[in-house]
Amino acid sequence: MKLATLSGNGPDGRLVVVSDDGSRFLAAEGLGTLQAALEAWDQAEPALRALAARLADGKGASLAAEAILAPLPRAWQWLDASAYRSHGELMERLFDTPPPAPGRPLMYQGMSHVFLAPTQDVPLPSEEDGIDFEGEFGVVTDRVPMGVTPAEAMKHIRLVVQINDWSLRAIAPIEMKTGFGWVQAKPACSVAPFAVTPDALGAHWRDGRVHLPLLVDWNGRRFGAARGEAMGVGFHELIAHAAATRDLCAGTVIGSGTVSNDNYREVGSSCIAERRGIEILDEGAPRTNYMRFGDTVRMEAVLSDGGILFGAIDQRVVKSV
Amino acid sequence: MKLATLSGNGPDGRLVVVSDDGSRFLAAEGLGTLQAALEAWDQAEPALRALAARLADGKGASLAAEAILAPLPRAWQWLDASAYRSHGELMERLFDTPPPAPGRPLMYQGMSHVFLAPTQDVPLPSEEDGIDFEGEFGVVTDRVPMGVTPAEAMKHIRLVVQINDWSLRAIAPIEMKTGFGWVQAKPACSVAPFAVTPDALGAHWRDGRVHLPLLVDWNGRRFGAARGEAMGVGFHELIAHAAATRDLCAGTVIGSGTVSNDNYREVGSSCIAERRGIEILDEGAPRTNYMRFGDTVRMEAVLSDGGILFGAIDQRVVKSV
Repeated sequence: MKLATLSGNGPDGRLVVVSDDGSRFLAAEGLGTLQAALEAWDQAEPALRALAARLADGKGASLAAEAILAPLPRAWQWLDASAYRSHGELMERLFDTPPPAPGRPLMYQGMSHVFLAPTQDVPLPSEEDGIDFEGEFGVVTDRVPMGVTPAEAMKHIRLVVQINDWSLRAIAPIEMKTGFGWVQAKPACSVAPFAVTPDALGAHWRDGRVHLPLLVDWNGRRFGAARGEAMGVGFHELIAHAAATRDLCAGTVIGSGTVSNDNYREVGSSCIAERRGIEILDEGAPRTNYMRFGDTVRMEAVLSDGGILFGAIDQRVVKSV
Repeated sequence: MKLATLSGNGPDGRLVVVSDDGSRFLAAEGLGTLQAALEAWDQAEPALRALAARLADGKGASLAAEAILAPLPRAWQWLDASAYRSHGELMERLFDTPPPAPGRPLMYQGMSHVFLAPTQDVPLPSEEDGIDFEGEFGVVTDRVPMGVTPAEAMKHIRLVVQINDWSLRAIAPIEMKTGFGWVQAKPACSVAPFAVTPDALGAHWRDGRVHLPLLVDWNGRRFGAARGEAMGVGFHELIAHAAATRDLCAGTVIGSGTVSNDNYREVGSSCIAERRGIEILDEGAPRTNYMRFGDTVRMEAVLSDGGILFGAIDQRVVKSV
């Protein structure tokens, strides 16, 4: 089952169910918003699945003319990990930070009061900040109790999403040195149009990981196609880590961190910083610059048969006014 | 003007205006929640002030029997600084972290999907985590545009609050070392009952700082009485820092970090970690232990005439189930 949020009816938009091919939708009128559905998932899911069945029967209106927002245009909590060790090891080398302690995945609390729509322009103040994309997968949970085990956490994964975690690389190492984590270096993220239930991923969802490549195109040229399954820990383990000392609210979004594979020289990267890191290792200095205003980035995870899954993030960076 | 949120009507509670002495209230029925009022402050404020005038005339119901929540029982954004240099320098020495870069206040993004009510028990998983309180002041903004100047930011401070930023000290340095900031080390904060408009602080609000001592009692014994005005940067400067690369949503809460004064040996501390740091400096080792289950902490900023301002946080730490 695919869910999306259309604009209208306030900042949280209108929840709709989308056909598997992403072309048609039916409004989940009684439920209102995705946040509301996640807060009462046991009641909401059967109603949503009934709409999905009608869509499978060919019902529904065309999605083509609709303005699609992020599935959660804002969330009460966004926790982003760095679960791909090939990426993490490279960054630790570049930023001279230690590897994570055993059994302690890297994770930070990010801004969640805005998630940008998948095709809206991304306003940022300065090219000097080192504008970078980070292609990620993520999950959305229902309410998770403090102290949950990884096995129990798996059952709280209600939706899988695809994210661009915008990052400002000139600021990031300055903020990291303080130990306080990122504020200025991590503006709003963008999210692909469709949030999908784990079962809709079929064999592409296993061990709390998305088993698909994330295709990243920068200004229309392929930049990366790293596979999602290389996460060092699964999303269920990230949820258990996050919930060690707090309950997680329904609608908590947990990110994987930049998708990355050991053979990044062949498959490419999901962020510019990783490419620059490889250049430093291989050539002694980075030669790929960060993004310029007007640059575009497109991210999409496609099924092996070419079928649509989360839909595409396709955005342009612009100067904020 | 003093605002509070009473339980009822869902997770965001019911907004009320409270008499200056904290004894009576009138419900802000047309507005609903504090979050809603902050989103339309220009319209909300006159209606709230009209209720405050009626309270000044002796109207209103007794607050004594009401369940008071945090003014914002949850917020879309919570950014906490470390703006008291006497505290910061001690912590940097203890944790071997560098001082902040010039012009860059220390700030992290914290969990905001729950703010605990001022007298509810605080459930935490283990005494081994090093349970500590952190007495702070904070402000609540309306919507702030990206790139705001400190002078402009001052006008966006709609409310002043008093906060206990619960901290788990055994986890904090492990998370700091990664550069990602805190997740497990920073569970939900608690907030004092009344959010007050800056004008209600009178001469106690100046230069974006609260000019009052914060009285902290641990298990009924005075632990600290540090004054708020010693902030190295004011709240307006913290807002401008936070808004450098993002818009801030209405209802953003910005914290001062642990209130601390240069003469901490005389006035005491607003957290146990600071006391332990002083003991390490003076005696070579800490002798004050962190909190035990069953311990209580009370925090209140009182006016020079003994008058009530934010009301008191008064809580007990208990083992989470």
